[in-house]
Amino acid sequence: MRYKLTLQYDGGAYHGWQKQRNACTVQQTVEDALAKVTGCVTAVHASGRTDEGVHALGQTAHFDAEKALAPDRYLAALNYYLPPDIRVIAAEFAPDSFHARKSAKRKTYIYRIYDAPVENPLLRRLACCTLSGKPLDDEAMDGAAKYLIGARDFSAFMSSGSSAKTFTRTIFEASVTRDGKNVTFSITGDGFLYNMVRIITGVLLKIGKGEPAGVMKEILESRDRRRAPDIAPPHGLYLKCVKYD
Amino acid sequence: MRYKLTLQYDGGAYHGWQKQRNACTVQQTVEDALAKVTGCVTAVHASGRTDEGVHALGQTAHFDAEKALAPDRYLAALNYYLPPDIRVIAAEFAPDSFHARKSAKRKTYIYRIYDAPVENPLLRRLACCTLSGKPLDDEAMDGAAKYLIGARDFSAFMSSGSSAKTFTRTIFEASVTRDGKNVTFSITGDGFLYNMVRIITGVLLKIGKGEPAGVMKEILESRDRRRAPDIAPPHGLYLKCVKYD
Repeated sequence: MRYKLTLQYDGGAYHGWQKQRNACTVQQTVEDALAKVTGCVTAVHASGRTDEGVHALGQTAHFDAEKALAPDRYLAALNYYLPPDIRVIAAEFAPDSFHARKSAKRKTYIYRIYDAPVENPLLRRLACCTLSGKPLDDEAMDGAAKYLIGARDFSAFMSSGSSAKTFTRTIFEASVTRDGKNVTFSITGDGFLYNMVRIITGVLLKIGKGEPAGVMKEILESRDRRRAPDIAPPHGLYLKCVKYD
Repeated sequence: MRYKLTLQYDGGAYHGWQKQRNACTVQQTVEDALAKVTGCVTAVHASGRTDEGVHALGQTAHFDAEKALAPDRYLAALNYYLPPDIRVIAAEFAPDSFHARKSAKRKTYIYRIYDAPVENPLLRRLACCTLSGKPLDDEAMDGAAKYLIGARDFSAFMSSGSSAKTFTRTIFEASVTRDGKNVTFSITGDGFLYNMVRIITGVLLKIGKGEPAGVMKEILESRDRRRAPDIAPPHGLYLKCVKYD
């Protein structure tokens, strides 16, 4: 029996989603909890990795279990064994053809910026603070984000160490909005290269601080990562949701 | 020279504002930082105590210093020595007649509720979760909050152990609003009794879960704390701002 899970987590204490030796990861923690529920070691496959320190509001994952519990029983039992910084917010049956990564059609990430000269202590783990007295030009940032929409080669926005073989991804929506001191970059696409959202955010922050919005287009077209050397810190990034057909 | 400070803090690690033996408090932490800046022990007086675990978005305080630094220098120096869960967000000169507590005319508190069956791990220290699948009736809660407006005897909403001699406080504004799963109770008054906002929130939560809104008026008029035995947890409460003439 295949199950689909929707997970939220505070990534602050984890070395990302993916299992690795000698490091605490979200995947290992969820698999450990599942083993306590089912009595046997079971792999949990996510829609994709999230990096060290990155949060999730709606990560999805699937697993196959011989123990055919009702999905709500899995939800309650997993949350019983999971630490409070990881929660299963939905559990449902899924067809055998469902695969959390391969079936995914769209993912949305958000990046939260706190635009103020002094850090907000309540957001210190949840948003990246500009530490500047001059507010970001969020309209220029929004304009620059629009250059990303469409099918593009995003080589300029990929960290090395990736196993990606193709560099074209389709972005359906990208925007920067402001609510008081909270500035949010939201981006939806069919997939993302390694560190792509954080590297794009690095460029957006420069544009917010005065560089022309056209810099985004120039860097994109250059396909040269050296043009986008800054990477925004992980604690502002959230995997918001994953959509399937 | 008298200075006024505006402070934000994550109260999670502190036994409240007020100094006490053998406990880590916000006041002690700020006074310790100030001693490092000025070289001498100086008392810092807040607009009022916040309890253990309660947060502040805009606590105010004053202190007198012989070292007549520019306010911005105090801001930078205090933030250098303070831990990241306490920040000075504004510093300014104040007249000798200014007193953070005695001169305060209005205070606004907010109480943050996350209205969902499963805790949001990113808000677990910042909002109180209902853990219920049935959404709160926020309109009934808002209606009940309106009973609080005016000059009233709030004896029914005060914990014992208070040194208060009068029980009448004037509430200028009280409302409950919803933004998705986030429900916020906001209340502005000329002062508050011990635990008053958290006890009122306990009653509002019951009304949100189905008790008639008139219960608020009945409890208020009873002046009997036994009618309001529930107290909402501290981590949802924020001192939002303090206003002066």
